Amino acid sequence: MKATAKAHTNIALIKYWGKRDETLILPTNNSLSVTLDGFYTTTSVEFNEQFTKDTFVLDDVSIAGEQYQRVANFLNLVRQLAGKEIYAEVKSTNAVPTAAGFASSASGFAALAAASTKAIGLKLDNTELSRLTRQGSGSACRSIFGGFAEWKKGEKDDGTDSFAVPITPKEHWDIRVAAVVLSSKMKKVSSREGMKRTVDTSPFFQGWVDSIPTDLAEIKEGIFAKDFEKVGQIAEANCLKMHATTLGAQPPFTYWLDTTVTVMQTVRALREQGIPAYFTIDAGPNVKVLYLPENEEEVQSTLRNIPGVTDVKLSRVGQGITYLEDESIV
Amino acid sequence: MKATAKAHTNIALIKYWGKRDETLILPTNNSLSVTLDGFYTTTSVEFNEQFTKDTFVLDDVSIAGEQYQRVANFLNLVRQLAGKEIYAEVKSTNAVPTAAGFASSASGFAALAAASTKAIGLKLDNTELSRLTRQGSGSACRSIFGGFAEWKKGEKDDGTDSFAVPITPKEHWDIRVAAVVLSSKMKKVSSREGMKRTVDTSPFFQGWVDSIPTDLAEIKEGIFAKDFEKVGQIAEANCLKMHATTLGAQPPFTYWLDTTVTVMQTVRALREQGIPAYFTIDAGPNVKVLYLPENEEEVQSTLRNIPGVTDVKLSRVGQGITYLEDESIV
Repeated sequence: MKATAKAHTNIALIKYWGKRDETLILPTNNSLSVTLDGFYTTTSVEFNEQFTKDTFVLDDVSIAGEQYQRVANFLNLVRQLAGKEIYAEVKSTNAVPTAAGFASSASGFAALAAASTKAIGLKLDNTELSRLTRQGSGSACRSIFGGFAEWKKGEKDDGTDSFAVPITPKEHWDIRVAAVVLSSKMKKVSSREGMKRTVDTSPFFQGWVDSIPTDLAEIKEGIFAKDFEKVGQIAEANCLKMHATTLGAQPPFTYWLDTTVTVMQTVRALREQGIPAYFTIDAGPNVKVLYLPENEEEVQSTLRNIPGVTDVKLSRVGQGITYLEDESIV
Repeated sequence: MKATAKAHTNIALIKYWGKRDETLILPTNNSLSVTLDGFYTTTSVEFNEQFTKDTFVLDDVSIAGEQYQRVANFLNLVRQLAGKEIYAEVKSTNAVPTAAGFASSASGFAALAAASTKAIGLKLDNTELSRLTRQGSGSACRSIFGGFAEWKKGEKDDGTDSFAVPITPKEHWDIRVAAVVLSSKMKKVSSREGMKRTVDTSPFFQGWVDSIPTDLAEIKEGIFAKDFEKVGQIAEANCLKMHATTLGAQPPFTYWLDTTVTVMQTVRALREQGIPAYFTIDAGPNVKVLYLPENEEEVQSTLRNIPGVTDVKLSRVGQGITYLEDESIV
């Protein structure tokens, strides 16, 4: 009763920002992401009658506290689904630099969901797996799929219609993402807390939700047609709207540092020089820059030369869940 | 038929952001400002039958083009009101550092309105003067008054109920404003253009308008009670909301530089050290910091030490319109 799975993180081009149900993790809007090959989690799960409780080891460190509890809570869902009362040993390796502002919870819960359901003997299709994964971490439900994926918010109260589906360009599309690392400090407002405060207090939240269907329809057109400028423009505008909502919260807050704005300005300057590059920013200070393979050298060197940038990590479009037979790969 | 008037600029604590009528300059929301003593315009206007056209000299430079046309258009309103067809010579001196991001149009049109109406023989009270001034430059209608002033947006289509009124604390209140100068570059999006684009395209504009009555009621309570923290908090939050609306415009834009964010962070850090200081930002990159007299030294030196800050200009609460008898004062 052991299985190992690898999942990549994803970066949202249409942001997940706002929950309609905190427990089931049901969002107020559809979101859309691209899975990245550079950042992933490998997790092996063993269920064993001998275990007297769940254990969780992350990068060779035994985890307790809130982080442990989220994993144990997720395993409860898996046990419930399988109808089995049996504890698990979870071992994860994160190739996601947490400091890069990538949500390690996306690749983490996707890998946990895949490995744990396989280990306990459940046979889930990707839709079922995505729906389950969502309850561990919202954005993780998109990491079940490679390439582009849309998380359908669903309408039902029980969340059964809330899961991700793949969005496929007309042919293979090699776009790139540079993660621009600005600060390794922990952020002051977690994405969970920031989202909640925004939903509860920002006068801009309804405008955000109302603007999503158009953004989503247009970016999907752009993806199908492999129209990079269109996809980039919509992603950049969508991220700015997400960050605008936080400025209206009470008390107001922002995830931006001064250097975040510097990177944004630099990306715009690249465009003025004729290089198509677009930024997106999650609930943290770092910036992700979308670009095309032919501009990799120029984009990378320009970003690295910005004062305050500590690292630039490049990534390609990544795969969805893969199961590993040889556990030594962990 | 000559008169000279001096008017101070003002800084909005509840921002004017959005017009419901572009020609009459009627706003979509009430705004509230404090008039500042450090930044002013002195203007003398002479009407003379001998003149064959209006002339406008600003800081000893003869002005043509759009800037001239705005002055001439305003003089047309004054002539219409007086029922006289007579041209004017306008001479202005600006003690408003335009690069500091202060709207020189506020003090400029307030001084022009006061001097020109007096010179042509009109006897307007402050309400009538404010209403007329509004049609030259919206925010200028608040500069008719010293101290705090609220610009009532009015409801009527003809704008007759849209003018400023004084808002008076229970007793004299010595608050201070530091103008933090970051860049002398001209801004890319004018406030007029930015406002229009936001009204026309931002999904956040309605949320902005809806949030004003509460902000306004609370800041007036704060002013009446001389509650500096309350006034500062609301002003800062209101300015962040205004800037949030621009991030949702199509195409999105921001008036912020990276150093704008640095100053915002520094002001927040001052508060964490127990020094009450709050920022506000208009349609440009520079930051104005509200503080109390007892903290002047610390606030000033902290702001001056921020990399990228080129100047810090201090100001106190200023007076409304004054008429100067001795034209040599110009």
